[in-house]
Parts: sequence; C-alpha cells; structure tokens
Amino acid sequence: MKIITRIKTMQNLTQKLRREGQRIGFVPTMGYLHDGHGSLLKACRRQNDISVLSIFVNPVQFGPQEDLQSYPRDKKNDVLLAKKENVDIIFYPSEKVMYPGRYLTYIHVDEITATLCGASRPGHFRGVATVVGKLLNIIQPHRVYFGQKDAQQCVVIRQMVQDLNIPVRVCVLPTVREKDGLALSSRNAYLTEKERQEAPALYQTLKMAEAEIRRGEQDPRRLTQMMAQFLNSRCPQGNIEYVMCVNAETLEPVKIIQGTVLLALAVRLGKARLIDNVLLRV
Amino acid sequence: MKIITRIKTMQNLTQKLRREGQRIGFVPTMGYLHDGHGSLLKACRRQNDISVLSIFVNPVQFGPQEDLQSYPRDKKNDVLLAKKENVDIIFYPSEKVMYPGRYLTYIHVDEITATLCGASRPGHFRGVATVVGKLLNIIQPHRVYFGQKDAQQCVVIRQMVQDLNIPVRVCVLPTVREKDGLALSSRNAYLTEKERQEAPALYQTLKMAEAEIRRGEQDPRRLTQMMAQFLNSRCPQGNIEYVMCVNAETLEPVKIIQGTVLLALAVRLGKARLIDNVLLRV
Repeated sequence: MKIITRIKTMQNLTQKLRREGQRIGFVPTMGYLHDGHGSLLKACRRQNDISVLSIFVNPVQFGPQEDLQSYPRDKKNDVLLAKKENVDIIFYPSEKVMYPGRYLTYIHVDEITATLCGASRPGHFRGVATVVGKLLNIIQPHRVYFGQKDAQQCVVIRQMVQDLNIPVRVCVLPTVREKDGLALSSRNAYLTEKERQEAPALYQTLKMAEAEIRRGEQDPRRLTQMMAQFLNSRCPQGNIEYVMCVNAETLEPVKIIQGTVLLALAVRLGKARLIDNVLLRV
Repeated sequence: MKIITRIKTMQNLTQKLRREGQRIGFVPTMGYLHDGHGSLLKACRRQNDISVLSIFVNPVQFGPQEDLQSYPRDKKNDVLLAKKENVDIIFYPSEKVMYPGRYLTYIHVDEITATLCGASRPGHFRGVATVVGKLLNIIQPHRVYFGQKDAQQCVVIRQMVQDLNIPVRVCVLPTVREKDGLALSSRNAYLTEKERQEAPALYQTLKMAEAEIRRGEQDPRRLTQMMAQFLNSRCPQGNIEYVMCVNAETLEPVKIIQGTVLLALAVRLGKARLIDNVLLRV
C-alpha cells in the first residue's frame, strides 16, 4: 500500500493506471475510519482494479463555530484499517497542498444546498462540492463511493457530477448502524455515555415514521410533528435542528407523502451534531 | 473531421484516445471563427496528436442586457475554417445538452473576477469558468488554448485550473490583429464603417502607453489619465468603460508601474463592446 501526499505524484500515477486500462475506485473520507467507511472500501475493492482512499479533514466545509479543531483524527488506526481493506493507495494531502496561498475557486450547487443541513451550515456544501471536485480531478476515478448517512451530500455530489459532466460514477451505499440502530459516524466519539444511550432515538424515530407511512399517513406536517414529539421524549438531552420529509431528488418539502421521499433529521446532542435519514419509496 | 453533438459520445471518444496514448489539444470557442482562433487551432494542431475545437455560444456568460441573441453565428464557415486547420473533432453541443432542465452547479473564482470586465459584467466569469470547467471534463484534453486578447479570462481560467487541480496545461497565445492594429474579435462585425475607422485607437492607446512606460513613466494614475484622453480624442464615438494598469496575476491596480503589468481597456463603440490589452515586463 502506497501513501501519497503530493497532488502531482497522485495525478501522474492515476493517469498511468488509466492508460494501462485499470479501473480506479475512490473513497473520499475525513479519516477516523469506522465500519461505515469499511463498507465503502469493501465495495470499492470488489468493483475496481485499484482501490484509492483519501483522508483529508477539509477545512473549507467547516463553519467558523464548528468542530474543525476537535474533529477526531487517528492516522495510525486509519492506515491499519485501510490495509485490512486492501486499499492500494492512500491519498493523504496536507491543508497547504490542497489550499495553497492564493486559493480562490469554489464550486457552488444552488437550491439543494440551502435546505436541511445547508440551512444551519452555510457554506458547508460549497466546501464539500469544492473538495470533492478537486479530489475527483486528482484521483480521476471511474467510481466514487459515498454513504447514504450523508443523504444531502450524496444528492449534492450527484448533481455536481451531472452538471459539470465529471466522468465518474457516483455509488451510494446504505448507512451502517450499531446494533441499537445508531448510524456510524466519526462524531459519535463526542458522545458521553448518557448521550450515547439516548442517541438510538434518531433511528427509532425514523422507523416509527416509516411505520406510520406504511399504515397510510400521507400528511408530512402531521408526520414530522409526531416525529419531533417522539424524538424529544426518547432523547430529552437532544435539541432538534430539523425533522423533514422532502423529495429525494430536489430536497424540497413534499406536500403529500408519495413517490420517493427522504425522511431526514438532525439533532444536537452534547458536543455532537447527529444526522440520520431513511429513503422511502411510497 | 467528426462533428459531435452529444456529451457521452465525446467523452467515450476522448477516453478511448487517451487510453491509446494520444495527446489531445483543445480550443474552446463561441464560433464565428477568425484568424485569432486560427492561430490557436494552428498551435493546437502542431502540438498535439488530436485537435479538438468546440463551438458553443454559452448563454450563462451573457448578462440579461447583453448580446446573446445577436451574437454572430456562421456554422458553415466555421466548419470550413476548421477543416482548413486540420481539426479532427468539432464538439458542437446544443444549449439543452449543456444546460439541461434542472441545472444548478457553477464554478466561482473570487476576487480576480470582480475587476476589469467583471465589474461591468457581473456573472460573466462565473459563466466562463463554469462552461470551461464542463468542457474540460467532456474533452479531457492535455492542452487547452486561449487568446491573450481576453486577458482576464486567461487569468481566471489559469486560477481555476490550478485551484481545482484540473490536469490540463493552459496555453495562451498572442492577440492577432488587423493590419491597422485592431484586435480580431467576432464582435468587430457589429461596427459600422465609421466606427471601424476609429476602432484602431484602442491599440494605439496601448502602444502610446507602452512607449510612455519605456520612457520612464511609473505613475499608473497619470498614465491611465493620459490613455483616456488619447483614446477619447482618437475614438470620439467610443465610451470608455475602463482603462487600467493592473498586476498581471492578481489583477489588482498597481501603485507603481513595475514587474509584470497588464494595461487593459474596454470601450463601447456603437453596438460593440471592444477590449484590448498589452502585457508588459517593466
């Protein structure tokens, strides 16, 4: 396994691999890898000749009040996990390599970045789109892998790739969960023991809502009110940021629950901001 | 010579050519080709195995009050000229192919797009950066060619390519001029005979200023005032939009004329908006 830190080295290597006809798969991450990343890396390994992992805590996607400094990092363990998943190349650039002195260019995706997490994290998806755009130009993969847990991120990246005609296939894999339903996230590390006990309430709320929809509920307002109540009662330490029922493609709130809808929520629980979602075909 | 109108067809072809080890050169244009484009196509032909020309009048770089509808078009003559320059592939997409229904993604280059032409054409360079970003993803060239006449465009594209790590070499070729010094431009077609007689004043003003600098002038304010007076006297029908002396890389106004400076001007002359510039190492 190679660890590459320079952009030019990485680009020369992937261009060589492409000329040789090798299929390149790519998993972009911010490190502190867990089994959610593991699932992406397994698919990447299985579906491609070359498996590339990037680890980069992208400053541009953090707001000034957010957890850039405290975001968990563990290079040693990440490298071990990457080896276990038979990664061929880790791209591990520094901030200075990715954003040198006079950095001026950003990729904006309009409309779908203004809602859900984008509403409380202005600039976040600009940072995500920009760094993913850069990484796709550096790695030049045939396939790129994301987890459904970051549902809005997946929609934004798909839109960017389609709009900018980036020649890559975007693969989205199901959210990996703890046994009690909590979606895996590097930020779960922030939870105290007591907060951790309440955290499964996010997924329980989504499952409750799914059951309501299966029973015939079609009114998104009634449903999200019910979800908020349920969530507050099971997770009293949490502060709900949003509970929404939106069109899975446009991310606009639906007026009636039908077609493919995304049920999504975000909760501040202690130092962590947790998100979760389910995608439903009604 | 192939004419390709679909993105997928173009992408499949260039990916095949790249796998075969062919070097691809690319000249993006809005058509209505003149000898300025001809000079780019000649360099492209000489320096690469495959020469690709795109013709696309990009609506996103025109303001609502600008000349999108009246912008000159002549497909038949463009194809003839392309053949003459031994172009291998013309990429000739429709608006609908480039900007389908739900188009949401734009590339912004900050700071250097707010001055010079960007000041009076808000959104123009966002449109330019976006379409060039798209075209580079579609054509995947090794080299891309631009003319120095659009000096700010060249700086913006270089910055975008560097910032987003796009694996292409940006080649900028000298402005091609009529015998009387007027820079070639598709928009020269808008000039009446009388306006055309005054139009060489733009380049004469730049040459006068260059001579002043060579004689020792170091004060940009005095110089640009002199340029404006000179230009107004030789081109009385024109309305000056700007006359500036800026740092060639940052495009910021210089306080003293030294290093590499860009002398640039824009003039409205009848229905045409004309620009010209000279790059000077002082």
